[in-house]
Amino acid sequence: MFFASDNWAGAHPAVAARMSGAAAGFSTAYGDGDLDRAVYKKFSEVFEREVAVFFVSTGTAANSLSLALYGKPGGISFCHREAHVMEDECGAVEYFSGGGRLLGIDGSLGRMDPAALEKALGHFFPESVHTGRPAIISITQSTEIGTVYSLQDIEAISTIAGSRCLPLHMDGARFANALVALETTPAEMTWKRGIDVVSFGGTKNGCWCAEAIVLFDLDLAREMAFLRKRAGQLFSKSRFVAAQFDAYFHDGLWLENARHSNAMASRLAEAIDAAITARLAWQPQANEVFAIFGDDMAARLQAAGATFHQWPAPAGFSGQLGEDEKIYRFVTSFATQNDDIERLAGLIR
Amino acid sequence: MFFASDNWAGAHPAVAARMSGAAAGFSTAYGDGDLDRAVYKKFSEVFEREVAVFFVSTGTAANSLSLALYGKPGGISFCHREAHVMEDECGAVEYFSGGGRLLGIDGSLGRMDPAALEKALGHFFPESVHTGRPAIISITQSTEIGTVYSLQDIEAISTIAGSRCLPLHMDGARFANALVALETTPAEMTWKRGIDVVSFGGTKNGCWCAEAIVLFDLDLAREMAFLRKRAGQLFSKSRFVAAQFDAYFHDGLWLENARHSNAMASRLAEAIDAAITARLAWQPQANEVFAIFGDDMAARLQAAGATFHQWPAPAGFSGQLGEDEKIYRFVTSFATQNDDIERLAGLIR
Amino acid sequence: MFFASDNWAGAHPAVAARMSGAAAGFSTAYGDGDLDRAVYKKFSEVFEREVAVFFVSTGTAANSLSLALYGKPGGISFCHREAHVMEDECGAVEYFSGGGRLLGIDGSLGRMDPAALEKALGHFFPESVHTGRPAIISITQSTEIGTVYSLQDIEAISTIAGSRCLPLHMDGARFANALVALETTPAEMTWKRGIDVVSFGGTKNGCWCAEAIVLFDLDLAREMAFLRKRAGQLFSKSRFVAAQFDAYFHDGLWLENARHSNAMASRLAEAIDAAITARLAWQPQANEVFAIFGDDMAARLQAAGATFHQWPAPAGFSGQLGEDEKIYRFVTSFATQNDDIERLAGLIR
Amino acid sequence: MFFASDNWAGAHPAVAARMSGAAAGFSTAYGDGDLDRAVYKKFSEVFEREVAVFFVSTGTAANSLSLALYGKPGGISFCHREAHVMEDECGAVEYFSGGGRLLGIDGSLGRMDPAALEKALGHFFPESVHTGRPAIISITQSTEIGTVYSLQDIEAISTIAGSRCLPLHMDGARFANALVALETTPAEMTWKRGIDVVSFGGTKNGCWCAEAIVLFDLDLAREMAFLRKRAGQLFSKSRFVAAQFDAYFHDGLWLENARHSNAMASRLAEAIDAAITARLAWQPQANEVFAIFGDDMAARLQAAGATFHQWPAPAGFSGQLGEDEKIYRFVTSFATQNDDIERLAGLIR
Repeated sequence: MFFASDNWAGAHPAVAARMSGAAAGFSTAYGDGDLDRAVYKKFSEVFEREVAVFFVSTGTAANSLSLALYGKPGGISFCHREAHVMEDECGAVEYFSGGGRLLGIDGSLGRMDPAALEKALGHFFPESVHTGRPAIISITQSTEIGTVYSLQDIEAISTIAGSRCLPLHMDGARFANALVALETTPAEMTWKRGIDVVSFGGTKNGCWCAEAIVLFDLDLAREMAFLRKRAGQLFSKSRFVAAQFDAYFHDGLWLENARHSNAMASRLAEAIDAAITARLAWQPQANEVFAIFGDDMAARLQAAGATFHQWPAPAGFSGQLGEDEKIYRFVTSFATQNDDIERLAGLIR
Repeated sequence: MFFASDNWAGAHPAVAARMSGAAAGFSTAYGDGDLDRAVYKKFSEVFEREVAVFFVSTGTAANSLSLALYGKPGGISFCHREAHVMEDECGAVEYFSGGGRLLGIDGSLGRMDPAALEKALGHFFPESVHTGRPAIISITQSTEIGTVYSLQDIEAISTIAGSRCLPLHMDGARFANALVALETTPAEMTWKRGIDVVSFGGTKNGCWCAEAIVLFDLDLAREMAFLRKRAGQLFSKSRFVAAQFDAYFHDGLWLENARHSNAMASRLAEAIDAAITARLAWQPQANEVFAIFGDDMAARLQAAGATFHQWPAPAGFSGQLGEDEKIYRFVTSFATQNDDIERLAGLIR
Repeated sequence: MFFASDNWAGAHPAVAARMSGAAAGFSTAYGDGDLDRAVYKKFSEVFEREVAVFFVSTGTAANSLSLALYGKPGGISFCHREAHVMEDECGAVEYFSGGGRLLGIDGSLGRMDPAALEKALGHFFPESVHTGRPAIISITQSTEIGTVYSLQDIEAISTIAGSRCLPLHMDGARFANALVALETTPAEMTWKRGIDVVSFGGTKNGCWCAEAIVLFDLDLAREMAFLRKRAGQLFSKSRFVAAQFDAYFHDGLWLENARHSNAMASRLAEAIDAAITARLAWQPQANEVFAIFGDDMAARLQAAGATFHQWPAPAGFSGQLGEDEKIYRFVTSFATQNDDIERLAGLIR
Repeated sequence: MFFASDNWAGAHPAVAARMSGAAAGFSTAYGDGDLDRAVYKKFSEVFEREVAVFFVSTGTAANSLSLALYGKPGGISFCHREAHVMEDECGAVEYFSGGGRLLGIDGSLGRMDPAALEKALGHFFPESVHTGRPAIISITQSTEIGTVYSLQDIEAISTIAGSRCLPLHMDGARFANALVALETTPAEMTWKRGIDVVSFGGTKNGCWCAEAIVLFDLDLAREMAFLRKRAGQLFSKSRFVAAQFDAYFHDGLWLENARHSNAMASRLAEAIDAAITARLAWQPQANEVFAIFGDDMAARLQAAGATFHQWPAPAGFSGQLGEDEKIYRFVTSFATQNDDIERLAGLIR
């Protein structure tokens, strides 16, 4: 019963098989092989326009390089106060951008509040060198706490970005989970809503190590190529990532994995909702379920072999926590088995 | 007939199989899983002492983080003038070290000349802030042009490093090729000769993506952990690298691969040596062969499907190049087939 | 009637005269001249212990280099949410520290709240590389809004710093104003209270350009020397700064200037307190007065030639602002004339 | 007899007087005061076109910010192998540019050899991310060893720069000395020859601390403003620099100082040339004289109170050094007295 994170799972069998299938033979290195190029083309199909694709080794690298691309002296990147770039990347964004600042914006349940963003941006005057200046806005889809920006939510942020000529980044470490939750298309969820660059994550959804920066402004591709290489993020045997994405996109595996993962989360949420000794902290929309229960229950689940993490109350959490109650996070993935959900549900009930 | 680079090969079947075998099941992320820990232990066995191991995504990352660990304000890293860190990493060393300088040292056939190193170091006075100050020395084993530092060569460099209290780094992108060429042990080739940190490469010798920083000073492990994470180089599903190294070290596969690769190079070298229209630029010691021939021959080989690169004359090259002659590099790998060598040899003869 | 900032004033006549006096003759460059050394010694006397002194060109440089000295990968500097380093230095701290993060702590009226600091620090676990890690704490004395940390206030912060082995920095751009407000000694206000490094500002208090980093840990002096030089902050004709500090410390000019400046602020505050159409936003403790009044009054003062800035309501401001009321800042300096205060007071009354 | 460096002199009386004259009164801070603006205008007159002017605290800052402005990921700055940015700035260029590389080009007697530059540039292929890419070229006028680029020399370099769309920087720490040596105008020596940005130094030629970045491309002024502020190089009481430049440009003081300084060097050179026990290392063109003599003479001069530095043989030095002979540098300045020259000459004769 592994619910600690979706990165505790391994690789989907189809991904593993595709990699094995690509192991033999010789191929141009550094991202210029036939399979690499075929996969870049696939990305363009998936996004319904020509995109520039850069494989990198981690989501942290994808986020940091994306924000660094749009960095400038005194530049400030705006993200949700509890975003992954803010809370879990050891200052990588600041480092990659040569000392840029991350500024956390409030917003309930993991989503940046447009009014709070507007207010924060209003603090900066273009003519002043003292305060620094806005450089880029970053949203996380799905969010760190399993909620999802609706297309209108994204549009509200991108309208603000557009009015100030600021680029907009999407941290899509769980892109697929949000996509199937919204029942929309990659194009609709990104560039048609004003997104300029995406950290497109495959790792959490069935790959071993498959992260890509998807850039819609092809004029910036050359700069990104240098940024990536200089950051030690250009794989020599790049096709090992290409092979993963090849399997990932094949026959809609990525959507299938995400649907499965979200469905597992829904079932778990239902079970928690129906339980007496536990309750949902808020309604999950993707593959993360946050539950509230007491220390006894936590101990019982752990004793039964369940892995999961305690979680701090996020901004905008309006619930009440009893004396010994805490919020716990359960993450599902392509590898989560129905049996595990049922077993966990049984323990919670 | 692929001789462009050893990173044009894919993964060794045993490596691919081990990865597939590790794909199922759940495991702690970020390098703390059981397989990760087992492989760290294996590294300690291989090096005959406790080492700290950090998987990273590329050799560039391994080198840059190693040098950054020992960086300091105004710090200068000394390497051979034609080292990979100098010529092929897009300034990653300077970037990772927050603006440190790389200083290229002369030396014939890819090996840093101890006297030239000594002289360059003598340029800096500890009490002066103006010139900057030496921070670390880096050697490449085997070198960029297929030669190898003997144990005495390494000792000559490390004696200089030691006399100035400077740490010594080994870029071991082709560590195994040098190791089997010297018929020595990892311990003898590294810490017993005064090496402090190794970029231990598995990618070029049969893995997909398996690079590790091997650190002998355990007190610095915590700093490296932060450096790596901040650089976006901490894999979440880290066991995919661990699995590769697991296969790599199993039953001496890594040594076997390197021996095969070196042997292929030797055979190719013999054929070139025996040819009339081509000759060796210098004697190969590992898995790279540098040949001199005319444009006609180059065209003929290319027409026959051989891939290889033209190469600039390195420092210390004493040969003469005829009117239309150039130096060409041929790299062999675990995947090089005897037949290809014979076919190439036939074309050259 | 210039109250826009204390950096709108020029140089005190004694400072100007001392510089002229030092203009002739030759002297060792780069901070090693006789006058430089004499002034370093003077600093040690002022602080009642041996200190390392580094002249730099701006307060921003002093702050940034001080925090950079204690920086580390993933390192976070804690300061008040409205500190100068946060609000007015264009990300210099992040830049100098190679990408470190500044984290703003709440606290009423410009002073960091110890409980809020403690809570923020509690967020970081030493063993985790993901969140980054605390590196240093910085307080501003006097604060951005003219309040002063009492010695007990400083001790409360330094106790927290000490319990976590974190160094403590004091941004003393207005060091003298705080010092005379507290009627204490430099030693009592700094190292005896646990301060490790001070940005010691002379510019705002009668010098042209006289900022110094005062370091109590002499073991770090060498690192700071390299940091400063690399940052382009090592003056060649350094004695031009030394001459200013020489005059500054001579016969207690610095304390006299600060007392005058604070006294001018007090008189202005009294006048505002006594006015009907204006009131104090909070009680000033140093040389900055914050007043609340309506747009009419603001226009009238400006028409009369007064310069001053509107100011946002700081954290912990409990007052109410009427419809057209705003907070305005008036800064006094060594150069503020009693007549100007009286004239301004007359206009406000 | 001070010949150690032109930065051992203090300030010219006219400069000191102008500063004293500007000490009283209030003025807008951060470079926006009336005197600042008047001096910016003066710069535009001096350069015969509208320029953007940025005061900074040191020549190192001027150089580093100039090169950083044109920096890019993987960017390489080309300078003479013995340039000040390479030899004497503690890696500031690399630091300010976020990890850019400095590449030293050969060239005899301090001047970059155009053919060597061309060859070095030819090493980089625009399409390759591995090697990094040229970003900017920097020349020093006058050079580190007292020689001067003729207008044709500058044009030869700028033609190469132009053919590759690379910007060209001039380190003018001794701008005036070169200018009067060439008997030309600032415009002719800079933008009319293809220079894009100048580090315009006043400090070595009679100011205390007066360095300016002079930018010809006004579109980049805003970026430079942020770069400078973020680097802690924006003076608050900026008029103290403006006042120095005001005096510097007044009635041609700067040219007069430089002419005096160069003339003193010429006289010294003549004396050395006529001596038996000493000889010129090469013909001086500005205010630095390099002489060759034995240890005895060196000891005798030092005993007589002369300060000067030993100097390594530069690239292209074709002279022979006897057993105990060395090269020594003598620098003259506005403050050098004829008597000192005569006394030194007497000792050498």
